[in-house]
Amino acid sequence: MSFSLFWRRGITEQIIPERSGTAFRLSKGETLVVIDPRGEQVADLLAFDAGDIREVISSGRTFDYAETIYLTKGHKLYSNRSNVLLEIVEDSVGRHDFLLTPCSVDTFDHFYPALDRHRGCFGNLAAALESYGVTPDMIPTAFNCFMNVPVDGDTGKLRVLPPISKAGDHISFRAHRDLIIGLTACSAPDSNGGSFKPIAYRIER
Amino acid sequence: MSFSLFWRRGITEQIIPERSGTAFRLSKGETLVVIDPRGEQVADLLAFDAGDIREVISSGRTFDYAETIYLTKGHKLYSNRSNVLLEIVEDSVGRHDFLLTPCSVDTFDHFYPALDRHRGCFGNLAAALESYGVTPDMIPTAFNCFMNVPVDGDTGKLRVLPPISKAGDHISFRAHRDLIIGLTACSAPDSNGGSFKPIAYRIER
Repeated sequence: MSFSLFWRRGITEQIIPERSGTAFRLSKGETLVVIDPRGEQVADLLAFDAGDIREVISSGRTFDYAETIYLTKGHKLYSNRSNVLLEIVEDSVGRHDFLLTPCSVDTFDHFYPALDRHRGCFGNLAAALESYGVTPDMIPTAFNCFMNVPVDGDTGKLRVLPPISKAGDHISFRAHRDLIIGLTACSAPDSNGGSFKPIAYRIER
Repeated sequence: MSFSLFWRRGITEQIIPERSGTAFRLSKGETLVVIDPRGEQVADLLAFDAGDIREVISSGRTFDYAETIYLTKGHKLYSNRSNVLLEIVEDSVGRHDFLLTPCSVDTFDHFYPALDRHRGCFGNLAAALESYGVTPDMIPTAFNCFMNVPVDGDTGKLRVLPPISKAGDHISFRAHRDLIIGLTACSAPDSNGGSFKPIAYRIER
């Protein structure tokens, strides 16, 4: 579902069209740069250990070790086995979400009953990751790049607001393991202010 | 790892000794009452669909539908497949955690390097759930009854403070499905102010 956009310093930049997803290998030591080309768009990211896909990023382990729910440059994304899979090495936005699971047919029914049903980021990730052996039940809470979910510290109440990312903003992750990555251009109106847009990415070696 | 304490209104109350865990079946329509008998203790709770243990409670789905990170009476705990597994029907405390994964050998190494290693709630849950076919990698973020994890809404920073539960406080869950439950008396010093204590529970039909 992605195609080459152009070459920049010899590195191919890929585009994920609006409301779709893709999956690919990321080798240990490589850096994945996720770019919001037009601004205010969300990209749900998953990372599985390429050698054993039962090991996957874990919001609960990551929050525990990072001691914060808002992750940015310098933070590491831990797996369910307490190993570091990815490290955030650059972040021009500073606001992402690791609380919420990818939107799905069911969340569309719940939040957007008047809209056409859509398989959402969950369905897009499941389809893209199927050839790597990942089944839908193996999809955990994703790291939602650029997603803006403020939490009221007193009441716990959360809101899903448009991202604060501007056109060209990015977040970069260095792989600490050989990984299988799932990545989307989000399908849910609330996540991006009702404006569906593509996501770009590139892999730096 | 649990034994009968006494009879109350014909219902057997079970005790989970300090730093241990148990697993049991909870049938659709039954209510699980989790009690903090001495106060300021945490109980990590997991729920799997008894008919297909690949379906399990999901913090990410639950936060999304509840629109809050703090769950109390009236809130439902959703599965990774967007089905309601448990509903909170009583809550005398009002502060629980669904952000953090159960403590484990690895979190003991990280947070308590000077203490003896302990398999923690994660190891206790894995051992108790093994006979039901649950493997360690299938253990997601638990619903941590009585765990007190305030979050700073501006910075996202979280802290693990002693529970606000007093002796005899409880939280009750009604089962919407036939379930396999995992439940612990927490092993991590920070979760309970450094004082390890038992947890009690009973099943009401």
